[in-house]
Amino acid sequence: QVTGPSGEGTDAVVILEKTPFQEEKVSDLLKKHTKLELQMCNDIYSTYHLYPPPELSEIKTTVVYPATEKHLQKYLRQEVHLIRETWEDYQNITLPFLQSQSFSIQWVYNILEKKAEADRIIHENPDPCNGFVLVPDFKWNQNQLDDLYLIALVRCRQVKSLRDLTAEHLPLLRNILQEGKEAVAKRFGVPGSQLRIYLHYQPSYYHLHVHFTALGYDAPGSSVERAHLLADVIDNLATDSAYYQKRALTFALRADELLFKKFQEAGRV
Amino acid sequence: QVTGPSGEGTDAVVILEKTPFQEEKVSDLLKKHTKLELQMCNDIYSTYHLYPPPELSEIKTTVVYPATEKHLQKYLRQEVHLIRETWEDYQNITLPFLQSQSFSIQWVYNILEKKAEADRIIHENPDPCNGFVLVPDFKWNQNQLDDLYLIALVRCRQVKSLRDLTAEHLPLLRNILQEGKEAVAKRFGVPGSQLRIYLHYQPSYYHLHVHFTALGYDAPGSSVERAHLLADVIDNLATDSAYYQKRALTFALRADELLFKKFQEAGRV
Repeated sequence: QVTGPSGEGTDAVVILEKTPFQEEKVSDLLKKHTKLELQMCNDIYSTYHLYPPPELSEIKTTVVYPATEKHLQKYLRQEVHLIRETWEDYQNITLPFLQSQSFSIQWVYNILEKKAEADRIIHENPDPCNGFVLVPDFKWNQNQLDDLYLIALVRCRQVKSLRDLTAEHLPLLRNILQEGKEAVAKRFGVPGSQLRIYLHYQPSYYHLHVHFTALGYDAPGSSVERAHLLADVIDNLATDSAYYQKRALTFALRADELLFKKFQEAGRV
Repeated sequence: QVTGPSGEGTDAVVILEKTPFQEEKVSDLLKKHTKLELQMCNDIYSTYHLYPPPELSEIKTTVVYPATEKHLQKYLRQEVHLIRETWEDYQNITLPFLQSQSFSIQWVYNILEKKAEADRIIHENPDPCNGFVLVPDFKWNQNQLDDLYLIALVRCRQVKSLRDLTAEHLPLLRNILQEGKEAVAKRFGVPGSQLRIYLHYQPSYYHLHVHFTALGYDAPGSSVERAHLLADVIDNLATDSAYYQKRALTFALRADELLFKKFQEAGRV
C-alpha cells in the first residue's frame, strides 16, 4: 500500500525483475572498484560475493498505480493444479466451456488475410487446407537468436486444438514441420535439430498453431505438462487417427480460472 | 586470461550469477536512496530502471584458477542438438553404446539395500518386482516446498529406461504413481495434483527411476524434449505393450557427448 494523492491508502503493484548480464559490461563488473568478498576457497576453486556499483545492476521496475482488485489478483501467487482430462471430460466439460466463451481470434485472421503483420511473415504456404503462415511470436524481439520464438498459424479455421486432430491433418502437420524448419534455417541460420517444435494443450487461443523455439531457450510453456512435440503428434496420428479423441491429456490450471471451476463442479478435481 | 603468479598468462573460469530477491530485503530496495529512472508512463502503468546500492545486489561469483582445458570446455557454450531416435537407432546405436560404458550405479543399490541414506527414505514398497523406494533428490535441500524434488528408484534391476518398459511393468508403474502421491501428500502436505511425475529419456543413469517435482517449480529436465509424464507412459503401455519398442523418441545431446558422436558416425545427425 502506498499513500495516494488524496492522502488515503491505495494499492499499487510493483514488479521487480533482475535483467540478464550484458556481455559488453561484464569486464566493468570485474574491475577493481567492485567490492569482492571471499566466501570459500578450496584448491583451484573459490567463491565470492561481488557487490557491483548501482549503474551495473539495474533492476527493471514496473508499477501499476492505482491498482484495482483485479490487478492484485493477477499478480498474487496462485495455486496451480494438474488436470487429467479424459475424452469424456473434454466433451462434457472443456468443449462446452470453450463454446460458451467468445474468444476473439480476429488478430489471427488479420495475419492470415495479410491485414496485419504482412511484413513480418517468415514463410507461407497458401494452400487453404494444408497451408500455414510462419511469423515471429510477439515475445521475441528478433534481436538475438538465443530466445528465438516463432508461431505457425494454420490456414484452416476449423481446428481448435490437439483434440480436433486426426490423420486427415497429417499433410498439414508435415508441411509445418518440414517447411517450418527449412524457413528458419534459411532466414535465421538455425538448423532444425536446434528447434523445439510443439503444440500447447491447453493452448492460449483456439485456432491451431505450432510453436518454434530455440532448443537452448527455456521457453515458458515448453514443459512436459503443456507441450506436445509436433513429431510425436504426427507419429501418434499415423498410428491411430483417433489418438487425440481417445487419450487422456494432462494440463495445469490456476485455481482461479473458470475452466478449473468447471472441473471442480463436475467433481473431476 | 589472467596473469598468474609466474607472470605468464593462465586461464581462469569466472562464473557470475544473479541471485533471487530476498523477500525481507525488498522494502530496503524501494527506499528513497535507491536511484529510480522513469522509462515510460501510460495511464496507470509505468516502468523504471532502479539502481540499487551495492549491498542489495550481490552477485554470486565462482572462480576456477588456474583452469585447465577441460574446465574451459565444460563452461564454453556447447551446441545442443535434438536426436529423433527410432527403435532401430536404439538397438543399433544407443544400446551398444550403453553396454560399452560401465556406468556405476552402486549408489542406487546402496539405497535399495539400505546401506546408505536409509534415514532419508520417504516411502518404500518392499515387493522385489513391483516395489520401489522414494527418497528426496540430492538437488533438494528440503528447506522449502517450492522446489520439492523426490526420486522413486525401482527395486528390479533389469529395467534400464523407458525403452525397456512393457505392459508387464504396469503394476510397478501404477504403484509408483499411486503410493508416491500418497506418501508426498502425507509427509509434505503437497497434493498429487501439484506434482509433476515423470521419467527422463535419456535418463542420467540407467536404472529405472521416476521424478517427482513441485508443479510450480521449473525443474531442470522437465521440458518436453526430455520428460515423459508417468500417467502418459502408463496409458501408452496399457494401449500397446510394445509402445516403447516401436516409437521414435526425441532427446537432446550436447555436441561433445560421446553418444552424439555415435549418432554422427551412423549418419543419423
